[in-house]
Amino acid sequence: MLSFSNSRIHAFSHSLILAFSHSSTNQQQQLMIIQLDQNITASQLERLKEKLREIQYKTNRVSTQYGDYIIGVGKKDFDIRAIGTMPGIRDIHRVSDDYKLVSKKWRVEDTVIELEGGIKLGTGHFAIMAGPCSIESEEQIEKTINHLATNGIRIMRGGVYKPRSSPYSFRGLGIEGLKLWYNKAHEAGIKIITEVMMVEQIEAMLPYADIFQVGARNSQNFNLLDALGEVGKPVLLKRGISGTIDELLQAAEYIFSNGNERIMLCERGIRTYETAYRNTMDINAIAMLKDKTHLPVIADPSHGIGLRRYVDKVALASIMAGADGIIMEVHEQPEKAFSDGQQTLSFPEAERLYKQMRQAFELREGF
Amino acid sequence: MLSFSNSRIHAFSHSLILAFSHSSTNQQQQLMIIQLDQNITASQLERLKEKLREIQYKTNRVSTQYGDYIIGVGKKDFDIRAIGTMPGIRDIHRVSDDYKLVSKKWRVEDTVIELEGGIKLGTGHFAIMAGPCSIESEEQIEKTINHLATNGIRIMRGGVYKPRSSPYSFRGLGIEGLKLWYNKAHEAGIKIITEVMMVEQIEAMLPYADIFQVGARNSQNFNLLDALGEVGKPVLLKRGISGTIDELLQAAEYIFSNGNERIMLCERGIRTYETAYRNTMDINAIAMLKDKTHLPVIADPSHGIGLRRYVDKVALASIMAGADGIIMEVHEQPEKAFSDGQQTLSFPEAERLYKQMRQAFELREGF
Amino acid sequence: MLSFSNSRIHAFSHSLILAFSHSSTNQQQQLMIIQLDQNITASQLERLKEKLREIQYKTNRVSTQYGDYIIGVGKKDFDIRAIGTMPGIRDIHRVSDDYKLVSKKWRVEDTVIELEGGIKLGTGHFAIMAGPCSIESEEQIEKTINHLATNGIRIMRGGVYKPRSSPYSFRGLGIEGLKLWYNKAHEAGIKIITEVMMVEQIEAMLPYADIFQVGARNSQNFNLLDALGEVGKPVLLKRGISGTIDELLQAAEYIFSNGNERIMLCERGIRTYETAYRNTMDINAIAMLKDKTHLPVIADPSHGIGLRRYVDKVALASIMAGADGIIMEVHEQPEKAFSDGQQTLSFPEAERLYKQMRQAFELREGF
Amino acid sequence: MLSFSNSRIHAFSHSLILAFSHSSTNQQQQLMIIQLDQNITASQLERLKEKLREIQYKTNRVSTQYGDYIIGVGKKDFDIRAIGTMPGIRDIHRVSDDYKLVSKKWRVEDTVIELEGGIKLGTGHFAIMAGPCSIESEEQIEKTINHLATNGIRIMRGGVYKPRSSPYSFRGLGIEGLKLWYNKAHEAGIKIITEVMMVEQIEAMLPYADIFQVGARNSQNFNLLDALGEVGKPVLLKRGISGTIDELLQAAEYIFSNGNERIMLCERGIRTYETAYRNTMDINAIAMLKDKTHLPVIADPSHGIGLRRYVDKVALASIMAGADGIIMEVHEQPEKAFSDGQQTLSFPEAERLYKQMRQAFELREGF
Repeated sequence: MLSFSNSRIHAFSHSLILAFSHSSTNQQQQLMIIQLDQNITASQLERLKEKLREIQYKTNRVSTQYGDYIIGVGKKDFDIRAIGTMPGIRDIHRVSDDYKLVSKKWRVEDTVIELEGGIKLGTGHFAIMAGPCSIESEEQIEKTINHLATNGIRIMRGGVYKPRSSPYSFRGLGIEGLKLWYNKAHEAGIKIITEVMMVEQIEAMLPYADIFQVGARNSQNFNLLDALGEVGKPVLLKRGISGTIDELLQAAEYIFSNGNERIMLCERGIRTYETAYRNTMDINAIAMLKDKTHLPVIADPSHGIGLRRYVDKVALASIMAGADGIIMEVHEQPEKAFSDGQQTLSFPEAERLYKQMRQAFELREGF
Repeated sequence: MLSFSNSRIHAFSHSLILAFSHSSTNQQQQLMIIQLDQNITASQLERLKEKLREIQYKTNRVSTQYGDYIIGVGKKDFDIRAIGTMPGIRDIHRVSDDYKLVSKKWRVEDTVIELEGGIKLGTGHFAIMAGPCSIESEEQIEKTINHLATNGIRIMRGGVYKPRSSPYSFRGLGIEGLKLWYNKAHEAGIKIITEVMMVEQIEAMLPYADIFQVGARNSQNFNLLDALGEVGKPVLLKRGISGTIDELLQAAEYIFSNGNERIMLCERGIRTYETAYRNTMDINAIAMLKDKTHLPVIADPSHGIGLRRYVDKVALASIMAGADGIIMEVHEQPEKAFSDGQQTLSFPEAERLYKQMRQAFELREGF
Repeated sequence: MLSFSNSRIHAFSHSLILAFSHSSTNQQQQLMIIQLDQNITASQLERLKEKLREIQYKTNRVSTQYGDYIIGVGKKDFDIRAIGTMPGIRDIHRVSDDYKLVSKKWRVEDTVIELEGGIKLGTGHFAIMAGPCSIESEEQIEKTINHLATNGIRIMRGGVYKPRSSPYSFRGLGIEGLKLWYNKAHEAGIKIITEVMMVEQIEAMLPYADIFQVGARNSQNFNLLDALGEVGKPVLLKRGISGTIDELLQAAEYIFSNGNERIMLCERGIRTYETAYRNTMDINAIAMLKDKTHLPVIADPSHGIGLRRYVDKVALASIMAGADGIIMEVHEQPEKAFSDGQQTLSFPEAERLYKQMRQAFELREGF
Repeated sequence: MLSFSNSRIHAFSHSLILAFSHSSTNQQQQLMIIQLDQNITASQLERLKEKLREIQYKTNRVSTQYGDYIIGVGKKDFDIRAIGTMPGIRDIHRVSDDYKLVSKKWRVEDTVIELEGGIKLGTGHFAIMAGPCSIESEEQIEKTINHLATNGIRIMRGGVYKPRSSPYSFRGLGIEGLKLWYNKAHEAGIKIITEVMMVEQIEAMLPYADIFQVGARNSQNFNLLDALGEVGKPVLLKRGISGTIDELLQAAEYIFSNGNERIMLCERGIRTYETAYRNTMDINAIAMLKDKTHLPVIADPSHGIGLRRYVDKVALASIMAGADGIIMEVHEQPEKAFSDGQQTLSFPEAERLYKQMRQAFELREGF
């Protein structure tokens, strides 16, 4: 059963208070990630905790879809081999970044997220997620699904809750729109990704979302990140409008450390002084993220430049920089879209790009 | 009774769908703010609505602590006098910015927010809000209250829910800490301002917060803004880490248009390329906001530069730029603070600054 | 004979004083580009000027390697056909951007710059310019030339005057280093591109530079741009550290309007809030510049990210975004380079990238 | 006689080549500033140099208006007392920043620059420099001088060479305008500050400029900075459009290390993502510069916000942040100014501000 008790979080926060009340005068805090054997016994676990208490390490248990971990936080130097060789321990790592569980330093093998039907997201696979900015009507949904199916696209994007700068703008069709869309898409064998804006929405959306998207404006909404850590669906986390790479990785750490390691990171352009485009696509971030984390990295060229005319070039560039997938806006009639029309491709434009992207991905994989 | 049904919001969003489905092809949308007489009759109101239907304007009713408004959204040109002279109408304005209700174009007289005990926030009054970044312990609360009372400071700041980039950092004492603090402060005649991070926290916090603070990371958390529009407490809204002035005003519009016009805006430094300080205080924003909106403008020099050594100069500069108040971090032992110690003043440093700020405010008011 | 009298510039500035003394109150200044027939007669030219005087247009004559133009500046509306049909006129265009001569609105066909030996720079051709940040020694020159020749690279980059933030850093070998390098390179059939930092250097460098590079810090050094407009060698103009696309195009306009239309624009990363890399490569700029101007666009991935490990991905992304060429730093022993070692590829790394880039270019051209 | 031989620079650069060819593999380079006695003997100097050669330090001699220094660059650790106690040595400091001579770590006492007639620039004195963006005509000069004299302003600003983004904009009256202006101003006992854009202009301008201004676009034009180091006039150095504080200090270091220590630094707003104003005034920079360097710090509120309506508030804020002076644009009829009219104050507006600024300065000095 899903519950938003946040009890795990609270217990965790509490256990850290003491550690941190001291840490301000002495910065050399150490963190270790201990991966437990699947069949660790209760007494083995107890011995491990005792060992950690001896060296005055606070512990936090993280259980995800893929593993069971103890995160230890303390200050003493210690011999990690003394712990690593204990029974019931699969692996142990010392980590020094501000992000730990999402770091490639610890987990060298990249995370590949699988969806039902054999859809894979991550290194070695190329995913396209396409669809309108906003879900607008049944007709629009049907036309888009038809377009995607024809082109072999297996994930549809769309918003039913829209974050809008002005309160007087269209804010989306809400949960009823989501249900309608989800059912139509699943009939056609297509998965959906959609934005969740607040903790309260999660429970209602959960049966009708294949991937939760966290928008740029919520990239440091830590309560939302915590709550998505307790959810059994993958999360695509967008970089903040002026978020750093470190902040993005730390946001992902929130989700992972609360129990969900099926996370994708999304570069969607950053805010700079340049006003010629809506955002400035940060291709560097794609290259660096693929190197720093084991999580899949997705690029959003539609927001990355915000101008339809150039979306194709930005998409292709993102693939060359290392992106594992592209999320992009398409609409049967971009000029009539409720939102983001100026950065949305028409179906024929999109079709041309799908082919080019697949060729670019193939070339890159051959390097 | 407080309820988070959001019914008003939903109704509003819904009524706008049609308007917006067309507006994408034709941008010339018009907005008008109609202020109703306090004792408008039902039939007068009905006639007004009929009139607006005639010119195909969608309407939204906004009721706040101070007034009752109809916001009309449509596209036809019309003679505002034809509506302004109807019975039951106090005032009518046509507005063209993306922010309307918070604009000075419509309401020339500045908003002054009053708290119990004669505390005034806004033009012509100077407010100091001081206290630690995080509420840490009973002893800390007492010492701070004592320091504030001695110096005639009537509002204490402090966090019980802390947004932290890393999930492994101290996240605050929570609601129990808030209750303890609130009671201690009120015994001493001091009001408190504290950050709310999510809609779910509002109800529990409501009896124990005099002013709700929305943090920089939540400045575009539109659900939170909507919900705070339904709350009977003032809200201090911080500018986003890379938020524009327009975005800040539009965020305030969310709160106002949901029924709460007791809003303060807070400049707290922006993210730029310069890494010599934590943020870059944007003095220009203070000067411009005082000109664009009738809402009070508060400056946060602690975050504005992030380095204790220069907080005083940034505070004084902010006052000269037009700030109606200063929110700043003080701690008995900054070097032992759980968070933000490097930008927190000690009590003696703060005392010196309080005096200087009051002199600077006096000089400015004399200009 | 080359002379830096700037007489053309002065005359031009002078003639504009009157025009501009009025223009502040009335913004609707018009510009037209009139391309003259190669064999326009003196009397035809006189009639044209008379016509322009009639409509109170100030004129400026621009003569480049490729054409002869009159730029007219005035405010009256006029029928361009009345001028376009006059004898001796090849073409006439009205232009409204702040950049005119470099705009694609006026000249639809892209500029392709030819160097001796059949080297072409511009749309449809792919150029690689590689070499060290600084020219350091004879041995280094020889090894690099050998590496380039082996890989079919025909343009070598290198600096003999180095702009350095600190006056205590290595500033380059100067003119003697340039002569040595030029001679060695030309023996091997390789052209060179090198940075010029000040007007005074141009005359001495002229015989020994195949392409002049203007660095990011000089991108608005208007005197230098003016002077390079009078020089018979191509110029590669780097975007300013925080220069906009418009400013880059206007800088190019300086060079063109002084008589040199053999200009390349270079995207080399911009300064943003992100500190994870030296600069943020702006892929959007490449896509947009190729659309706005007829000039060749070159990408500099070495400065674009500033970290050797990612230079290859950024280079390949730049090609997909539309770059006509890549300028990059290579060194036999990057860790021993006098400057920029951390962003310089070793010879084997570079060789691998040359092949990939050529494949990426080929794929793109096939789209 | 003034000569631009740059021989000192070249010798210096040369002497550093060896030092730097090694330094890339070992970063721990040390610098020391040795201040010589005014009457150090040749043999004492020789002994000092010998001593430095022993510890393999390269040396550079800097002679300014105020002192005679040896800058030593090397890597070995050494006992500075062994040098400090040698005859002929007044003082010795080890420095570790990238800027040395301009650092307050070395020279605790602030530099105060004196102009003829008892004008002082620096800590404890408050200077106003006012005038038009561009010098336009004799009449304009006379009216401005009259306005300044009436208000006790002793330094007039104005440009005769204007750096303009577009080559089609007004570029200034040039050297003849300067002579006219200089003579008129000096008759009235007023000094002038004007921008120099290139090395070639210095010699002609030298007799007619009291203070040279280096504009934001030339803040890293290192050749210009070098040349101004050899000039006997004070230099006001503007921060680059997106220049860091460190870069500004290093630019000043260029001037100082070439022999001119009469330098002022000028904060004039930086480029950020915010488009509501031309630039974002960086008040933090003023506070920090006053702490890091002994040089005077001047604020330019006209460019700092770029909007006439707010220039007063930004000016007053700058003073509170610690500025030693204000440089601002005034014009008899701002709406008719050739350039920058939108940020230029009228005479009555300026008069009101002069009084307020003097009061603000007085208040600050009393703190």
